[in-house]
Amino acid sequence: MASCLITGCSRGLGLELTKQLSSQPAVDSSNGRINFVLLDVAKEDSIAAAVLEVTQILGAGNGLDLLINNAGIQILEQNGVTGLHALTESFDVNVIAVHNVSVGFLPLLSSSRQKKLVIITSELGSITNTAIFSTAPFPSYKVSKAAVNMLMAQYAMELGPKGFTVFAINPGWLSTDMGGSQANLEPVVGACQVVEIIQKATPADNGSFRQIYVEGWDVYDGKNIPW
Amino acid sequence: MASCLITGCSRGLGLELTKQLSSQPAVDSSNGRINFVLLDVAKEDSIAAAVLEVTQILGAGNGLDLLINNAGIQILEQNGVTGLHALTESFDVNVIAVHNVSVGFLPLLSSSRQKKLVIITSELGSITNTAIFSTAPFPSYKVSKAAVNMLMAQYAMELGPKGFTVFAINPGWLSTDMGGSQANLEPVVGACQVVEIIQKATPADNGSFRQIYVEGWDVYDGKNIPW
Repeated sequence: MASCLITGCSRGLGLELTKQLSSQPAVDSSNGRINFVLLDVAKEDSIAAAVLEVTQILGAGNGLDLLINNAGIQILEQNGVTGLHALTESFDVNVIAVHNVSVGFLPLLSSSRQKKLVIITSELGSITNTAIFSTAPFPSYKVSKAAVNMLMAQYAMELGPKGFTVFAINPGWLSTDMGGSQANLEPVVGACQVVEIIQKATPADNGSFRQIYVEGWDVYDGKNIPW
Repeated sequence: MASCLITGCSRGLGLELTKQLSSQPAVDSSNGRINFVLLDVAKEDSIAAAVLEVTQILGAGNGLDLLINNAGIQILEQNGVTGLHALTESFDVNVIAVHNVSVGFLPLLSSSRQKKLVIITSELGSITNTAIFSTAPFPSYKVSKAAVNMLMAQYAMELGPKGFTVFAINPGWLSTDMGGSQANLEPVVGACQVVEIIQKATPADNGSFRQIYVEGWDVYDGKNIPW
């Protein structure tokens, strides 16, 4: 059975991904298929401890097939881009923590069969589409997502030749705590699409920025999103 | 006469830009056309002091026509993207400082005639072209330049309707302290192109990512660089 680590799985998209990937009617750590690992992605010692714990859970010789960097923050900034105030926090969690977590679990990923490294990013990080999302009041978040897209692209270049598939996914605007009640989709819909994209991903997807596909939504066309 | 502030002008591209924009045979603070202002872009109190000093130099009622955010760092990282170590420093100087400097001088820019806000960025920050520059050992720098491109794009969206022209320029790979001796072009060549692009810029260039034009170099084709 493939093994998977999802960061930020206590709620929202992460929780939905956990439910769906485990294919269980409810999340239950006692059923042996799911293990909860304490992890503060912003703290390097927490990452190191989590790597040790996951290594023990997997057991000797077993790698980690899939890492989903899902944890992230989106800080509301209502005074425009010139009034933004959250660049440092956004970089710390949405970029630097993604790097630290990925590097931490790289040895386990390297010894797995699938070697899939996924980053949950956002179409709000598309520089090409800045005008489309100009009214979304998250300027620091957008900058951090463009940054993590560039980080991902470089990971893909370096790890692709080693058998990895590294890619970014926009999960859609979901009615989670982050997305709010005005969002386009239920979390279950976005999570379902993310799971499908990940499970169908092949090395040809290495370095891509994937959009989900949802019938009836022109914006969720399943194609690659322009940088 | 148009007024201009260039950050990071003590050497390299910034010094060349200063020479060429002032159209003087040598940089000389005593000739009255050039004023040196002490500015550590990474320190908010230094920015505040520089804004006060520039306000006094310009004199009552006079705005700042052009701000060139040229100061930046490029840290060598020879262990690949998974071995990078300089994300925080790169973000601090190449993104957050650019934001802080731009915001600091925004009132002076707003009261000027030209309202040009330029960011010296790099084609190494093009996510589209990651493969082309994969061997350049500056992964954190690349991430920071993609980030500042997104910051610029958002500034352009917000300030364009207020009469600003905000854009990014790749000055070329120049034989400065940053670019090293193996670079493609002399600093004077890159600076000449940057000056030409800035002087010819119109509101139609708002939000663009400009490449310099140098005859004989396919890569320096003068077109917009893909994100």
